[in-house]
Amino acid sequence: MLDFSIGVDLGGTNLRIAAISTDGKMLEKISLSAKLELGRDHVIDDMCAAIRQLSDKHRPGGAFLGVGVGIPGVLDIEAGILRKSANLPGWNDYPVRDEIERRLGARVFLNHDAKVAALGEQWLGAGRGVDNMAMVTLGTGIGGAMILNGKIYYGMNGMAGEFGHVTIEPEGVPCGCGNRGCAERYASATAVVRMAREAIAAGRAPALAKAAEADAQFGAHTVFELAMRGDEEARRIYRRFGQVLGILLAGLVNVLNIDVFVIGGGVASAWDAFAPVMFEELRERSIVYAATAPADPMGEGASVGPHTRRKTVITRALLGGDAGLYGAARLPVV
Amino acid sequence: MLDFSIGVDLGGTNLRIAAISTDGKMLEKISLSAKLELGRDHVIDDMCAAIRQLSDKHRPGGAFLGVGVGIPGVLDIEAGILRKSANLPGWNDYPVRDEIERRLGARVFLNHDAKVAALGEQWLGAGRGVDNMAMVTLGTGIGGAMILNGKIYYGMNGMAGEFGHVTIEPEGVPCGCGNRGCAERYASATAVVRMAREAIAAGRAPALAKAAEADAQFGAHTVFELAMRGDEEARRIYRRFGQVLGILLAGLVNVLNIDVFVIGGGVASAWDAFAPVMFEELRERSIVYAATAPADPMGEGASVGPHTRRKTVITRALLGGDAGLYGAARLPVV
Repeated sequence: MLDFSIGVDLGGTNLRIAAISTDGKMLEKISLSAKLELGRDHVIDDMCAAIRQLSDKHRPGGAFLGVGVGIPGVLDIEAGILRKSANLPGWNDYPVRDEIERRLGARVFLNHDAKVAALGEQWLGAGRGVDNMAMVTLGTGIGGAMILNGKIYYGMNGMAGEFGHVTIEPEGVPCGCGNRGCAERYASATAVVRMAREAIAAGRAPALAKAAEADAQFGAHTVFELAMRGDEEARRIYRRFGQVLGILLAGLVNVLNIDVFVIGGGVASAWDAFAPVMFEELRERSIVYAATAPADPMGEGASVGPHTRRKTVITRALLGGDAGLYGAARLPVV
Repeated sequence: MLDFSIGVDLGGTNLRIAAISTDGKMLEKISLSAKLELGRDHVIDDMCAAIRQLSDKHRPGGAFLGVGVGIPGVLDIEAGILRKSANLPGWNDYPVRDEIERRLGARVFLNHDAKVAALGEQWLGAGRGVDNMAMVTLGTGIGGAMILNGKIYYGMNGMAGEFGHVTIEPEGVPCGCGNRGCAERYASATAVVRMAREAIAAGRAPALAKAAEADAQFGAHTVFELAMRGDEEARRIYRRFGQVLGILLAGLVNVLNIDVFVIGGGVASAWDAFAPVMFEELRERSIVYAATAPADPMGEGASVGPHTRRKTVITRALLGGDAGLYGAARLPVV
């Protein structure tokens, strides 16, 4: 017998539902599109039909322990209510948990998408077995979440982990949040494209200009590919990215004295272009400092030494887009 | 009947011992000098004699619950061992806890001085009643400690809270830690004196030059007094101090989403000179942001609003030099 729970990842585009056993095997995954245009009740109906399908099918194999749902936006976790979400317009103050429980008669837990992704990486990924970890998600912006003393850390009202809006350059690039020089203005997909367009406009980036002209979808990945092919301007952009990410992480290492930083999100795939400079900054700027062997998530830093000499490990996420499903499925269990 | 415990604050200069009731009254305090030159056993003997004196005297009033000791340096808290301390040379790997327990037959708890000061402020001072707070101690450098989810947060090996070495100016002033632009190079007593001496050397600070000449003890407090009397260069120094402290705190607010930051330490007395600029930076740079009414530690930020609109409060410490005694006395109780 293998008991299982169901994890749900609800975003503005996709709705994914997975049955996951308590020992961390993904038994089955259903991927749907989130039909937001049909209204929130319709989306919840779709979700519940998939949950019922999976729970009915796998119940002969073990007990069904409940449902965890990861969702983007501002939540009231205790009340199970989505307060507001840029990705789910029209869902303001919607009691997501109760709506699902009413339909299913199962225990349901709601949590932030970034926090359940961190929980997933801590359970089965790059943060496996550590009590203190943070996940840094490099995408359009920089997302973040922390597991401290073995538990999701929320802070005062669930907003903990806004790593992207830590000031790195006091007089730097203006940010939509009202600040200047925020980390995510230099170390995100949006920032890579901005820096590339600035280099093109300044006339110092012929290869980038050509790529941008040829490709309507010109984005961070194209810049990464040019960097790996040796284009100097593309390399410079990712070095700047790595420098700012390194300064951010060095500060966090000194503040949090955490076991592992897990770097995930789409832009983490540009690791080879930004990580060398990131580690240079970490070595110089953190006093309780950091290293990693990329192939081995518990690499260099794990070769401990005396109690006070242990190093924070900085490493890539291992579960990719499924981290949130694993973490959500963990909610009814822990 | 009023049960009590004993808190000890052991530093490189002073040794203070206090009997404190479980409802937070200081029953009696003994202040000694730490006679380090006579050796560590002698210091521990002095400490134990004072503890015995206090516990004998106050035991008729209630049960004696144990001893807590705050100590600077690198500790193995679980083993009760001081690994090393710049303030206590020759104490390396000294089993402080067991030495005291052996002499007294009482339960003894060892912890970092900065962390017990935070615990004291959370119990009876500016962080009273909150689950998540950080204490920032402005002195020779910047010290720090956090209470998260109601408990002292240690991190991986007790090093959490090194706020002073967060990078604020990536290309800034070199720091002894190997980094450049660390917060404490701009927002500490040492930094104030450095900036004053630079201004004097540049010939742009006649009032500071006169004060430095007249006073062999020329320090941060003299600069503060000149700033409050309107001296432009002294004001500029504390504005820079406030700017850097504000940038540091804004980042920490975004990362930690904490209820209260408590600002203590000797240089916190220059609050009126640095706080206005600090709050300007906080307003501009933190997205989950911060305000305070200095007279009321739970001031502006406490006038809550909807769940997600609560603000982090930044306020001055209330217990002064006794915070560590109160916090240490709390160790055997919580």
